[in-house]
Amino acid sequence: MNNIYSFDVHNDRNLTMLVDFYELTMGNGYLEKGLQDRIAYFDMFFRRVPDGGGYCIMAGVEELIEYLSSLAFSDDDIKYLRNKNMFSEEFLTYLKNFKFSCDVWAVPEGNPVFPNEPLVTVRGPIIQAQFVETMILLTVNHQTLIATKANRICRAANERPVMEFGSRRAQGYDGAIYGARAAVIGGCSSTACTISDKLFNIPAVGTMAHSWVQLFDTEYEAFRSWAEIYPDNCVLLIDTYNVIKSGLPNAIKVFDEILKPQGIRPAGIRIDSGDITYLTKRCRKMLDDAGYTDCKIVISNSLDEYIIRDVLEQGACIDSFGVGERLITAKSEPVFGGVYKLSAIEKDSSIIPKIKISENDEKITNPGFKKVVRIFDKENHMALADVLTLHDEEINENEVLELFNPVHTWKRKKLTNFYTKDLLIPIFKEGQLVYNSPTVLEIKEFAKKETEKIWPEVLRFENPHTYYVDLSDKLWNLKQDLLHKYSNIYK
Amino acid sequence: MNNIYSFDVHNDRNLTMLVDFYELTMGNGYLEKGLQDRIAYFDMFFRRVPDGGGYCIMAGVEELIEYLSSLAFSDDDIKYLRNKNMFSEEFLTYLKNFKFSCDVWAVPEGNPVFPNEPLVTVRGPIIQAQFVETMILLTVNHQTLIATKANRICRAANERPVMEFGSRRAQGYDGAIYGARAAVIGGCSSTACTISDKLFNIPAVGTMAHSWVQLFDTEYEAFRSWAEIYPDNCVLLIDTYNVIKSGLPNAIKVFDEILKPQGIRPAGIRIDSGDITYLTKRCRKMLDDAGYTDCKIVISNSLDEYIIRDVLEQGACIDSFGVGERLITAKSEPVFGGVYKLSAIEKDSSIIPKIKISENDEKITNPGFKKVVRIFDKENHMALADVLTLHDEEINENEVLELFNPVHTWKRKKLTNFYTKDLLIPIFKEGQLVYNSPTVLEIKEFAKKETEKIWPEVLRFENPHTYYVDLSDKLWNLKQDLLHKYSNIYK
Repeated sequence: MNNIYSFDVHNDRNLTMLVDFYELTMGNGYLEKGLQDRIAYFDMFFRRVPDGGGYCIMAGVEELIEYLSSLAFSDDDIKYLRNKNMFSEEFLTYLKNFKFSCDVWAVPEGNPVFPNEPLVTVRGPIIQAQFVETMILLTVNHQTLIATKANRICRAANERPVMEFGSRRAQGYDGAIYGARAAVIGGCSSTACTISDKLFNIPAVGTMAHSWVQLFDTEYEAFRSWAEIYPDNCVLLIDTYNVIKSGLPNAIKVFDEILKPQGIRPAGIRIDSGDITYLTKRCRKMLDDAGYTDCKIVISNSLDEYIIRDVLEQGACIDSFGVGERLITAKSEPVFGGVYKLSAIEKDSSIIPKIKISENDEKITNPGFKKVVRIFDKENHMALADVLTLHDEEINENEVLELFNPVHTWKRKKLTNFYTKDLLIPIFKEGQLVYNSPTVLEIKEFAKKETEKIWPEVLRFENPHTYYVDLSDKLWNLKQDLLHKYSNIYK
Repeated sequence: MNNIYSFDVHNDRNLTMLVDFYELTMGNGYLEKGLQDRIAYFDMFFRRVPDGGGYCIMAGVEELIEYLSSLAFSDDDIKYLRNKNMFSEEFLTYLKNFKFSCDVWAVPEGNPVFPNEPLVTVRGPIIQAQFVETMILLTVNHQTLIATKANRICRAANERPVMEFGSRRAQGYDGAIYGARAAVIGGCSSTACTISDKLFNIPAVGTMAHSWVQLFDTEYEAFRSWAEIYPDNCVLLIDTYNVIKSGLPNAIKVFDEILKPQGIRPAGIRIDSGDITYLTKRCRKMLDDAGYTDCKIVISNSLDEYIIRDVLEQGACIDSFGVGERLITAKSEPVFGGVYKLSAIEKDSSIIPKIKISENDEKITNPGFKKVVRIFDKENHMALADVLTLHDEEINENEVLELFNPVHTWKRKKLTNFYTKDLLIPIFKEGQLVYNSPTVLEIKEFAKKETEKIWPEVLRFENPHTYYVDLSDKLWNLKQDLLHKYSNIYK
């Protein structure tokens, strides 16, 4: 935790029991059958980018670390489970003495990630590796969803600051708290969510609501009072009654009367309703004519990447955006469909790959204990492809690398002059934390830098070019063998 | 809390600072201007029913009570705020000694509610009544959204049990925990979310994942092991390889070999992929032919009210549904747009009504300190209309009540033979809790009973009849007066 305060949402509550009930019935089952210590490998991955986009921004690792670090069943938890009359005393004793001992790899937060590559891999006794499924999915699904949506919105804003304003419409308290964190990872400059600032050191901002204006007998009086209290950071909300006829004239009057004599420049005006393009053009002209060319115009009101792109294209005069409900819930596609699938088990010290087959081809999993290798062009440092390999394979940077489409295998491409980076980084080794998370603002910078290494064709909002996520020869062959084996058994 | 265990998500963490930053800048402003003790009235209400439906199911009051009961700024909070260099020491001292002293009214959970009627009304010193805005909206918006979606899904399932399965795709931890609670209020029979059961006494259920099946060398072996461990509640997941050719034959074999000799009936089979209608018809026939006519068929896999209605109309043979991501995120419309607006202030002991005008007509608020009165038919107990009145009005059940559309005032209707019920119930009086929440299962029963009092025309999924939410003569006249006054000032 990069948290200078003692309060900590996670340590002050125990989320161990935030688990799908079947993880417990299976856990009890593994123990009953003596399978609890069988070493298993699970991959967490997703199959589609939300909103038809070309990439996602990985997020959630820090909270996953906190969860895994604090896994513990209280006496109350045990009592609750005993009352279910489904679990053996042996299992309850196991839970009472539970000690997390898995290896965990994850793609560090802020990395652009793509469908079908493991974002998290867990290796350990199946009773444990299965148990952590719910929280791995819940944490990474939620934060990656919001970071990805924020990234789209911030790119539409084209370097203008985007403030996260969605707490009141979030889906639950953590939807707001961790949603704000993910939004900043995705590119937001700040949040309205105070507790997220306190917890994660991301800047919280805010000025006034319409109720401030309504409380006073006149709008002018409300603005004047505000300017007297906050002369150095005076942003006035000008749409309570009528932006052009009342709000902006009153704002300019107050700037003239209260700020100008003190030699202070106004910080901005905010508009939360009405036609953004029309109003901001009119306001810009009026502010400029009044000598406030440096007064910023802030816009909020059900914005997303599409509206922001449209109004900017129409020449709206906007300096920054406040984005609420459509960001904090990823309204246009509010589900991130990450899954957690068994990929291998160990038997007699060797790794037995496992596959989940399906009538739905894209639901077939990639078997085995794997690595994710990103290939960069040595000249321009752009990302060329990701390659999934088995854990003991090495891609030689000095040899020609032949990529091929895992379905249409005749589509081939030869690469030279590249370098590689392993995306999956060790987070826990035998239950011990071996990773130190950067701060949220560091992750945000990292995400920006890494996204710039993705070709613009992949970054398009709609119909992006599909980034290559290919399999090594060895992994491809392994997968084909398993598919043929199962198709013989279950034909 | 109806929680027999000592762990409590709320009491173990402090959410006081889960607040939009502008609540704090305004609070500091009220104090600076000596306005902090001005008595203000705020209404929380919504303007549209999600998914084009006709009503919502109120939820979130219990968590709101917990939040308001435990409002307290820690030394850390004060330190954090002081470091912002924006707040006076007087304000920080005020926060340090913060004691909630407002009156709060709310519509009890489980009630069907409609657009434009207050769901929560707060009266108190504006510095406090403003501060609680973020959490009132966040809590009621989220839980009402999910309870409403769950209610739609459960009605589509037509008395078949619906299990909430969405934790892994929820938007944050509380999205899962309180989402499960709201889903049960809306009508779900149970949840997969273990911690929600522990906290709220709502039944948690679950059996096995595909990984259980994959772990074993064969599907048969996996099923056999499960039946040995859980003979009394044996539900087998039969779609890991091939439902018809492998999953169901293996399940029947295990029922025959393990359960039948013990005289135990199998509980069910679950299918999580493929064509639901086709597969369940085939499975029902095969189960019946094998003598397992009482074996339940459980379906999961990206369900919602539309898919459930469609497959049941096609004759799918389904006994219960597991519904995940589309319920827990209210995927089809994941934002509940509740707002919190100033409706009045007190000055010299009289109530001065306040209105928020807008170019957008439906964004104009209803002014004044109000009541929400539901009118029921004395004969059949069906709900006829809701009427907003000023707080000191009484609707006489023995007189003719003339309702009229607040926009098209020529649309009038005379009612006799009715009785009334006040929907807004006192929750806090001067900061003291005066309300005792029912259990979640009691709320669920209440919601079912109250929904049955709504005419089927209003309950339709699409294009429902609009339920009447009208204004009393007195309130309508007050509103018109204020609108004319403002249109003169800001024309």
